[in-house]
Amino acid sequence: MLNQLGRNIPDCIEGYGLCKPFTGENISTYNVIRSQIHAISESGETKVRSDLKSLLQEMELKDGMTLSFHHHLRNGDGVLNEVMMAVENMGIKNIRVAMSSIFPIHRPLVELMKNGTVTQIAANYISGPVAEAISEGFLDKPAIMHTHGGRARAIESGDLSIDIAFIAAPSADVCGNISGVNGPAACGTLGYAISDALYAKTVVAVTDTVVPYPAEFTEIGQEYVDFVVEVDSIGDPAGIVSGTTQITKDPIGLKIAKQTVDVIEASGQLKDDFSFQTGAGGTSLAVAHYLRLKMQEKGIRGGFASGGITGYLVEMHESGFFRSLMDVQCFDLDTIRSYQENPRHYSMSASKYGNPHNKGAVVNQLDIMILGATEIDLDFNVNVTTGSDGKIMGGSGGHSDTASGSKLAIVVTQLVKGRLPIVKDRVTTVTTPGQSIDVLVTERGIAVNPNNKALSDQLIKAGLNVVTIETLQQMAYKIAGEPNPLEFEEKIVAVVEYRDGTVIDVVRKV
Amino acid sequence: MLNQLGRNIPDCIEGYGLCKPFTGENISTYNVIRSQIHAISESGETKVRSDLKSLLQEMELKDGMTLSFHHHLRNGDGVLNEVMMAVENMGIKNIRVAMSSIFPIHRPLVELMKNGTVTQIAANYISGPVAEAISEGFLDKPAIMHTHGGRARAIESGDLSIDIAFIAAPSADVCGNISGVNGPAACGTLGYAISDALYAKTVVAVTDTVVPYPAEFTEIGQEYVDFVVEVDSIGDPAGIVSGTTQITKDPIGLKIAKQTVDVIEASGQLKDDFSFQTGAGGTSLAVAHYLRLKMQEKGIRGGFASGGITGYLVEMHESGFFRSLMDVQCFDLDTIRSYQENPRHYSMSASKYGNPHNKGAVVNQLDIMILGATEIDLDFNVNVTTGSDGKIMGGSGGHSDTASGSKLAIVVTQLVKGRLPIVKDRVTTVTTPGQSIDVLVTERGIAVNPNNKALSDQLIKAGLNVVTIETLQQMAYKIAGEPNPLEFEEKIVAVVEYRDGTVIDVVRKV
Repeated sequence: MLNQLGRNIPDCIEGYGLCKPFTGENISTYNVIRSQIHAISESGETKVRSDLKSLLQEMELKDGMTLSFHHHLRNGDGVLNEVMMAVENMGIKNIRVAMSSIFPIHRPLVELMKNGTVTQIAANYISGPVAEAISEGFLDKPAIMHTHGGRARAIESGDLSIDIAFIAAPSADVCGNISGVNGPAACGTLGYAISDALYAKTVVAVTDTVVPYPAEFTEIGQEYVDFVVEVDSIGDPAGIVSGTTQITKDPIGLKIAKQTVDVIEASGQLKDDFSFQTGAGGTSLAVAHYLRLKMQEKGIRGGFASGGITGYLVEMHESGFFRSLMDVQCFDLDTIRSYQENPRHYSMSASKYGNPHNKGAVVNQLDIMILGATEIDLDFNVNVTTGSDGKIMGGSGGHSDTASGSKLAIVVTQLVKGRLPIVKDRVTTVTTPGQSIDVLVTERGIAVNPNNKALSDQLIKAGLNVVTIETLQQMAYKIAGEPNPLEFEEKIVAVVEYRDGTVIDVVRKV
Repeated sequence: MLNQLGRNIPDCIEGYGLCKPFTGENISTYNVIRSQIHAISESGETKVRSDLKSLLQEMELKDGMTLSFHHHLRNGDGVLNEVMMAVENMGIKNIRVAMSSIFPIHRPLVELMKNGTVTQIAANYISGPVAEAISEGFLDKPAIMHTHGGRARAIESGDLSIDIAFIAAPSADVCGNISGVNGPAACGTLGYAISDALYAKTVVAVTDTVVPYPAEFTEIGQEYVDFVVEVDSIGDPAGIVSGTTQITKDPIGLKIAKQTVDVIEASGQLKDDFSFQTGAGGTSLAVAHYLRLKMQEKGIRGGFASGGITGYLVEMHESGFFRSLMDVQCFDLDTIRSYQENPRHYSMSASKYGNPHNKGAVVNQLDIMILGATEIDLDFNVNVTTGSDGKIMGGSGGHSDTASGSKLAIVVTQLVKGRLPIVKDRVTTVTTPGQSIDVLVTERGIAVNPNNKALSDQLIKAGLNVVTIETLQQMAYKIAGEPNPLEFEEKIVAVVEYRDGTVIDVVRKV
């Protein structure tokens, strides 16, 4: 069937099941489930295990189970690989790995996909060799790509039922109180792991740092944790602080950032107590930088900044530009320090951050959201899941969640990247529906979604360079030429779930 | 049928249902349920309501619903009365009130019991006119008396299904982030309200102080809250800080406290990193005082102190006698201050504190627990639910939870109180089973539970005045005479649930 965006979605996908097509509408009631859990009512029982392999045996790990992991250690994570190698050694097959995000360091998974240890992956973002291998069809069952909020929803609703959650724990006490702030692999908040801990049938804290009871700065409490297993190292601190967290020096990026702040100003959203989120990319950070200058000039103080938090936002918070920070993930050491020191630097779970089926997520309170795009089409649908070669190279993360919740969702991008036009007739994969996007800012002009006529009028009145998205497409095609359409096989390698669990698109094998 | 303690429990009680008799055994698996919930996925929806009555209408309040409340405002609480008066005004009948504890200030409930607005009460502790009225049989259905941990268990398991939770919120923001630390009725931690917020079908924050978003020191997050209703006042600060929180000056109480510390020392539990809990009564606080002197003398530093926290324990924490505090309820202003200031002063939910059906509660980590008793019998069963007149005057609170979890559970009491002997053949009502109690300390001697022979040997070796409990009973009878047996009617006015949901006793009409 065609979903509301005209994407061809099968009624049923082998290895995934029945598809609920994307409808673009919100539901008002939902189910939250929890199932049978092991009670620890005796004071004598110890949760501590010194050996991962015998713990797996004790937990009666079986073929077909779903094992979950979080990605706060990012490209420094050592836990997924260590657990999965132990699983392979036991000869267990057909495991579904539910890791909130997958990075290049998780390359060993590829071998496990080939030999049938892992036959399905659910993640919000996948980059590196695992993404490549999924695109090449190495998984028996299609990968499931969630949003950050959608993953929490899927876990809470039972759509993503977790048998064992392995929580990489920078520190933990013997009762399983888990903290992200102490230990050699400190990562700050543990927002993406909360739903796993609350809803998995069995929860294992994997730690290299056992601290005195009760652990300081506990984010996941002992009442949710079955086992604490000690390993030599949960990860490489150098890889935790990874990704671009410097302001771009590229003049085109800076120009886009400057224009973005003009858009914000013209939109009327730049007022005392406004809220703001931006990614950790160079252009996104540059938006924060110019926004700061504008706030200074106009004497405006913001309410909160949210999302993954960087040192740049910490500095703005500490300088009084934002009263508070709502932090689902600390991107650098300065952010981890701030999280411990600043009483208005709050952690939030992925559910609190972006789950559409709770009683109101933080994204709903966002005024201004700065988003990236790999591709954007004439309906303002955005792709951040696949590259222009059709292969998986990312995923929504919080893209769809924040775009949907925020009052003003701005996509910032160069018109042409790597000699490829960014504005296309149809994006290769829809990650975020155009209905959530208000405006596209490029170095050659600003296109406003026709569903936001008021914004268009405001920007034109402010003398900004407003053009149609079709005009931007023509400019892009003039520079880079019209891209050749990709050829796909029938085989579906990934199902892209919108945050509400409906299928917004599928990724087919190139 | 007779339960494991020989108490006569009906198979089925009208207005309560089938009874699971107390068995004295732990179960190892349990169910946690959650049901259909209203989603707020739009950014435009506001949760704020200015009028309680129209909110009740909007929520379609119906006859027969269960409404829940927490007792952190103690004898200063204004929320239960205000909500229930509005319920009565609407002509709604047959409401079950699930309030974690009920105090004299809740006297208006009595009228609502008489006129059928309220036909059942579930609480962990009931004192004052409501207790009196229940004992006199004013409720259509028997009251259900939980423990603090057992209430959390009942809510999480669905045994106590809540339609609407009204959370008295010292401060809240417009999205329902609730904090206990700001506002005129600041009460500190909100541990007893957490399960209500997580599991009720609808959650209402009732507040007199709306703060900027996001609220500082949020304990209950917006993702759980449906509505925020503003009222003039949620309570009287003077009543929040109530109850005995001064060390006794009574020489008998001081003597018992001193001997208790001798018992602790002789037991071998007084060592570095030990954990400790005591009540807020005068003798209990005196134990803390003498314990402190002993710790100082021996150079011992404790791990954590837990439970409801008083200024005396705060002072011990700040002086380095206990590394951390695990706080389910702040008893005074100094404790509220400490909770905000001291990074190792942690809050805990009632579930984390004492729920026997999660993955290990804090009570399981307790080394030493000091308990009170209204009566104790030859099997060491303790009554803190009814007075010697057979009327309800309290309830378990955390009594059974901590007695069960702690390594050394010590009951401290005078042998005779108000001319009545405390040690009896059979307690009027069993609150806590004797199997959980290790030792009874009175001014005339120390009786050790025969199930703890090792402790008895240690105390005798240390030269303490160890006698049998039968000896203590005889001494008490000698002083005060043998008490006359009470006469009860058939009518059951309250069902006493043990922490695991089994029925440990019933209270009949006198």
